[in-house]
Amino acid sequence: MHDEFQQRAYELIEAGRYIHGQGWAPATSGNFSARLGDGRIAITVSGRHKGELSLDDIMLIDAEGRSLDGRKPSAETLLHTSLYRRYPGVGAVLHPHTPSATLLSRFFLDELVLENYELLKALPGIDTHEIRIVIPIFPNDQNISRLALKVDEYIELHGDIYGYVLAGHGFYTWGASVKDALRHVEALEFLFDLEIRLHGGGKP
Amino acid sequence: MHDEFQQRAYELIEAGRYIHGQGWAPATSGNFSARLGDGRIAITVSGRHKGELSLDDIMLIDAEGRSLDGRKPSAETLLHTSLYRRYPGVGAVLHPHTPSATLLSRFFLDELVLENYELLKALPGIDTHEIRIVIPIFPNDQNISRLALKVDEYIELHGDIYGYVLAGHGFYTWGASVKDALRHVEALEFLFDLEIRLHGGGKP
Amino acid sequence: MHDEFQQRAYELIEAGRYIHGQGWAPATSGNFSARLGDGRIAITVSGRHKGELSLDDIMLIDAEGRSLDGRKPSAETLLHTSLYRRYPGVGAVLHPHTPSATLLSRFFLDELVLENYELLKALPGIDTHEIRIVIPIFPNDQNISRLALKVDEYIELHGDIYGYVLAGHGFYTWGASVKDALRHVEALEFLFDLEIRLHGGGKP
Amino acid sequence: MHDEFQQRAYELIEAGRYIHGQGWAPATSGNFSARLGDGRIAITVSGRHKGELSLDDIMLIDAEGRSLDGRKPSAETLLHTSLYRRYPGVGAVLHPHTPSATLLSRFFLDELVLENYELLKALPGIDTHEIRIVIPIFPNDQNISRLALKVDEYIELHGDIYGYVLAGHGFYTWGASVKDALRHVEALEFLFDLEIRLHGGGKP
Repeated sequence: MHDEFQQRAYELIEAGRYIHGQGWAPATSGNFSARLGDGRIAITVSGRHKGELSLDDIMLIDAEGRSLDGRKPSAETLLHTSLYRRYPGVGAVLHPHTPSATLLSRFFLDELVLENYELLKALPGIDTHEIRIVIPIFPNDQNISRLALKVDEYIELHGDIYGYVLAGHGFYTWGASVKDALRHVEALEFLFDLEIRLHGGGKP
Repeated sequence: MHDEFQQRAYELIEAGRYIHGQGWAPATSGNFSARLGDGRIAITVSGRHKGELSLDDIMLIDAEGRSLDGRKPSAETLLHTSLYRRYPGVGAVLHPHTPSATLLSRFFLDELVLENYELLKALPGIDTHEIRIVIPIFPNDQNISRLALKVDEYIELHGDIYGYVLAGHGFYTWGASVKDALRHVEALEFLFDLEIRLHGGGKP
Repeated sequence: MHDEFQQRAYELIEAGRYIHGQGWAPATSGNFSARLGDGRIAITVSGRHKGELSLDDIMLIDAEGRSLDGRKPSAETLLHTSLYRRYPGVGAVLHPHTPSATLLSRFFLDELVLENYELLKALPGIDTHEIRIVIPIFPNDQNISRLALKVDEYIELHGDIYGYVLAGHGFYTWGASVKDALRHVEALEFLFDLEIRLHGGGKP
Repeated sequence: MHDEFQQRAYELIEAGRYIHGQGWAPATSGNFSARLGDGRIAITVSGRHKGELSLDDIMLIDAEGRSLDGRKPSAETLLHTSLYRRYPGVGAVLHPHTPSATLLSRFFLDELVLENYELLKALPGIDTHEIRIVIPIFPNDQNISRLALKVDEYIELHGDIYGYVLAGHGFYTWGASVKDALRHVEALEFLFDLEIRLHGGGKP
């Protein structure tokens, strides 16, 4: 029986298989979610191997991040729910833990500027390479409420963003569907890796 | 029923699976085509995941790039048709979006010279490593007609080429068949990557 | 019939498939073990392809490292048994032979400090990135008794560690189960690779 | 019906699948052979995709390199036959075309010294990391007879080697069986890659 939860869950399971296969969710890191039509959110249970997820590894939370099935939500749940709150059109949030994103804060201070890449057209609303976008880099923080607030304030001040990096931790991006969000993950990681290669040289 | 369109389409689907698997067509980038005996061209529909193509993701256009099945052709269609026009022996054109090709223009100005590599023998008509070939690098351009013209004028002026790079965008290469074109993709990308690494663009 | 030995053996076989697939056990290098409830240890036979293990490639030894099935134990067996002796809670020991761990001693003297990485939370007992852990690097030594003693003395002096590197040889880590140990392998290798890249050992 | 030729051929097919999967035989490059009990040699037909070999892609030659089945032997056949002539114990010769081996001659002049690596124990007759071996690097040459002679003279002068690199072209190694030779390929490529990383840095 394929209800909406199962459909979203299977999309997250497949996304996890791809993301882990790329080396982007090592050692159970990373977390992925998708919003259902009624506002409930399917999200990966904390601590599970993201490349070997099963239905049991996907739980339900409400729009405030509270568990709807008795299980303990991930600590990072608020980073997901605050994005769903801000962006009614967002249907999925993906948080991979990639080498590039983990390294970025060693080469860039508090933002990465991406410009002049054809692949920027993979991001929503962009139809030319002749554009300049900013990916903010926030310091990591175990206090997730504080971190979610920081992200929210940044967007209030600077306008909409396509994703953000958490220093030494990975990045968050989102889309209308799991498929779109995964496309954004691919595009951003591809560009993060190139920028590291362009700016990380010069070391003995 | 395996008519010619289906055969070419399946070759493109397999090529896409390989190319995406290598990380050479991220986030729905890239496009691939093959020419049929009667001059019609099978080409990937824009915006599809190049590693998960199905028959529905391959459309038909005529030699001028006009859609033959009601669907909207890719913006880059003219880059394919102008190659088929110039080279009667070409049966397939592949445009991957690789990290190396995207980076090349940061290290080389308007051309990359490849010489002294055994792998140059994978390109048509070359039977020794003691040869020097030039891969032009064109600035990216959203105006595809203008870009196609630029490529055409370059070839008029400089003679036949084996492929070309679009700065920050990837590269185009071709062959008598999808199989040959894919061999050229493999060879050029292998060499692009080495040249990037030799000139400072390795993974720090 | 799934007795305990078979269960542990299959976990080691799967771990080997993953580890070799990542390029972390080239040319039959590496070795993996798991402890049974009665203290006997299932361990990979020396010289077998670690990505293609079968039940025949897993042997039994006792807590002192003596063969229980007539076959010759790996030279490195004592590195496993001394960890099981020291840590009653450890159920598996994994020794991969990764590029990063092999290179580490060229960039770091006798220890690698890891701090400020979210992925440190994949290691037991760590729940914040704001922590500093030390991974000792021991010179390689064909005299395994001497090496096992050196590791043991280090732990006596410095306290518990999460794993250690053998210069030019790879690393050892462990966990309550094969699954946990594999998570630690993933986390440590991810971080070793980043640290190498930050200190000059990237792929030029 | 599994005669000796078929057995060796299937081993070569599997080796090719692995080698190409690693990116070590791009664009139909590379070639692999195995000797039969009666001295005939099974060798890959020139120009075939090394990751998709079938029985049809393996031909038979005699000890002098002459075709035994009407098909044209690879140009590089003499590099195989001269090794079989010199080393009666060698049962397989593998020539991968790896990025590392292709780059090596840009960083090292006419030899690469490997010492102090545990993985050297994967090579025949080595049981310690405390050893120093030399891998010669020969300039590439389309005149294979001349090249085979050069390799032979080097061995006459310097003694037995474990493999050799052809500048800008890849490397050759061998073993008692296809399995052993493949283990040597894995070990040498792993170490070539590390040496490139250690000596290729310092680029802006």
